[in-house]
Amino acid sequence: MSVLPTGPALVTVLTAILMFGLAFQVGRARIKHRVMPPQMTGPPEFERTLRVQGNTLESSVPFLAVLWVFALTVSQVWATVLGLVWIAARVAYAVGYIRSASGRLPGFMISTLIFLALMLGSLVGLLLDLTRSPSAP
Amino acid sequence: MSVLPTGPALVTVLTAILMFGLAFQVGRARIKHRVMPPQMTGPPEFERTLRVQGNTLESSVPFLAVLWVFALTVSQVWATVLGLVWIAARVAYAVGYIRSASGRLPGFMISTLIFLALMLGSLVGLLLDLTRSPSAP
Amino acid sequence: MSVLPTGPALVTVLTAILMFGLAFQVGRARIKHRVMPPQMTGPPEFERTLRVQGNTLESSVPFLAVLWVFALTVSQVWATVLGLVWIAARVAYAVGYIRSASGRLPGFMISTLIFLALMLGSLVGLLLDLTRSPSAP
Repeated sequence: MSVLPTGPALVTVLTAILMFGLAFQVGRARIKHRVMPPQMTGPPEFERTLRVQGNTLESSVPFLAVLWVFALTVSQVWATVLGLVWIAARVAYAVGYIRSASGRLPGFMISTLIFLALMLGSLVGLLLDLTRSPSAP
Repeated sequence: MSVLPTGPALVTVLTAILMFGLAFQVGRARIKHRVMPPQMTGPPEFERTLRVQGNTLESSVPFLAVLWVFALTVSQVWATVLGLVWIAARVAYAVGYIRSASGRLPGFMISTLIFLALMLGSLVGLLLDLTRSPSAP
Repeated sequence: MSVLPTGPALVTVLTAILMFGLAFQVGRARIKHRVMPPQMTGPPEFERTLRVQGNTLESSVPFLAVLWVFALTVSQVWATVLGLVWIAARVAYAVGYIRSASGRLPGFMISTLIFLALMLGSLVGLLLDLTRSPSAP
């Protein structure tokens, strides 16, 4: 057994797989719509696929940051549960947004709410840490 | 009390909040300037807001990487102090750049200097770790 | 001696330096090709430099995620070795892609294979953790 909390670590690897999968989708969309690198504009479906990948990266970095602080100060189990729902919401966002611009909204809203919950929980967890251990190094 | 160093963890959560806040600003700028997703071009103020968000993401990833290596090999207190100044500088960058292209410079320069300090400190910290523990696993 | 695994920490700092160095290259390409911020389009060489930086950021986030899970569940030594090869491949990608669009391919393919190895290894490592410690908290 390693020292790593398994649940949040699994969510982290799944987030990495999601980012990799979406970059792969951009590669496929480049071939389908004949948009050669380094071009970043093309038909609407290509540009939506590009935004899915870009927005997911932009969301994953702050998500992973608060996921780990939440896991280590509040609850590993809840970090894992919320993390898995976040990933499902981001998959729904990707599938919906590639189809149409409005299709991005349900997944976007659910993943944003989960981010906010992890973020507020992290701040509370850090505050409790500080008050519980005033003499810690 | 958790095992997590509270200072660097707080800097990490504040960085996540900054990234989230700037993505929220892009959403507001999309409405204000009527630039609908997935469009990524528009009036100069919109494009500057987009660059603020993009550049902050691009800077946050290497910043968080060296922040933690510095915190765990050199000093948690200094990682926290430098980290908080970095965040203040990135807020100044965001406010300045949304106003004008040249307004990005002071915040950009201060945050870059802090990144370089954390980066060099991390390398020194890792080097000292290696020399101090030649027989460690 | 700190608690931080030195090898993966060194790979992490080198990845941060790579991201910083490529952002610096974009700044130089902006001056060389006279593309002022916040503009994101210009001559092909400028746009390739921009893609090198963007794609490296997009790859570094999932790379660092699986690097650490792999290091803490499978092997720190192998994480370090694979990590250093990944960085060398990303440098080859950058040098090749700035020269020509097809020049990106060798470095891209090697770094992708290493990502996949770290990703699969992480999943196996987490699975072994779960089966070895059914009664862990």
